[in-house]
Amino acid sequence: MLDPIRFYFDFSSPYGYFAALKIDKLAAGFEREVTWHPIMLGAVMKITGSKPLSVIPFKSDYVKNDWSRLARFMKIPWTMPDHFPIAALSASRAFYWLVDKDPTLAKRLALATYKTYFGHGKDITSFEILVGIARSLGIDQESFLLAIEDSIIKQRLKNETSKAIDSGVFGSPYFIIDGEAFWGADRLWMIKRWLQSGGW
Amino acid sequence: MLDPIRFYFDFSSPYGYFAALKIDKLAAGFEREVTWHPIMLGAVMKITGSKPLSVIPFKSDYVKNDWSRLARFMKIPWTMPDHFPIAALSASRAFYWLVDKDPTLAKRLALATYKTYFGHGKDITSFEILVGIARSLGIDQESFLLAIEDSIIKQRLKNETSKAIDSGVFGSPYFIIDGEAFWGADRLWMIKRWLQSGGW
Repeated sequence: MLDPIRFYFDFSSPYGYFAALKIDKLAAGFEREVTWHPIMLGAVMKITGSKPLSVIPFKSDYVKNDWSRLARFMKIPWTMPDHFPIAALSASRAFYWLVDKDPTLAKRLALATYKTYFGHGKDITSFEILVGIARSLGIDQESFLLAIEDSIIKQRLKNETSKAIDSGVFGSPYFIIDGEAFWGADRLWMIKRWLQSGGW
Repeated sequence: MLDPIRFYFDFSSPYGYFAALKIDKLAAGFEREVTWHPIMLGAVMKITGSKPLSVIPFKSDYVKNDWSRLARFMKIPWTMPDHFPIAALSASRAFYWLVDKDPTLAKRLALATYKTYFGHGKDITSFEILVGIARSLGIDQESFLLAIEDSIIKQRLKNETSKAIDSGVFGSPYFIIDGEAFWGADRLWMIKRWLQSGGW
């Protein structure tokens, strides 16, 4: 069995959303699983001294246009959320609460969360919106709400972010395949090429 | 006649090199000319508060690997220069000295300069190396050396950089097509798609 592809992302990252919609299908073509790893990109950016794209002069206007253009060209639903960027802590915690119990459901939850945020433009820092997503997947509302306020789960997200930083992750989306790193939704073709050729 | 594609780059930019080898052929398929515009990326980065990729923790290692991987996948010659990054002022000035007199030769000079730097890893801040490139294209050595020290040409490069900043340029490579901006060598597929579809 080949090692899974590690997919790191922040729920507040549009390029992470584009990658999230594509990576599992791409990997399946090469009999690879994908493990998903939401991280706190803000903590990662402190290491590299980076700022969110949306606050950098010139780049902020450019990327907003690039996101809608990319969505159009990739035929992906896109709505620029009013609340952006966000600290997507609850959504990330919900993922880590579920992932050990039911990794498939955790991934479905993450995908539904991304679609709610960037497909429909709804604020995923809202507990009401998050609970609605959870309910639509048959997840118990009360356990869900307790989990995202649980101090052990909160610490888990911090630990996962630290582990990502230790692995060299500095952006979203970020992929590690057999030790090789790929950064950005625009590297999906390189990932495909890498999986086809083994790097050559 | 369709408006030309505007291609902005810095000779010290590896991603600019990758784009330079591809953009004219891509454009020709859609009956578009490409005008080349070397700029001083350092001046542009002051506006956005960006730093060169090669000095940012984590990213510097990543991009070095990405450049050689990209060259391998694109079948493009690649040698990481010992002198990197550089302020490629003389090479840029030489371009602007030539471009009004002979735009085709200016572009050939720019392409040969890029290939010398990133294809062979030779230091293009060296007058000796630059003169060698010029001579190989039949350019008079004495006029060339006078030109790159000429105060009018020096000012021209500054003006061209200011004009690029006024047009919103914040990176290398950067393309403007009928007012639409594309940033990065990894946007060549989007440029093609844009030219095919008119943006849809």
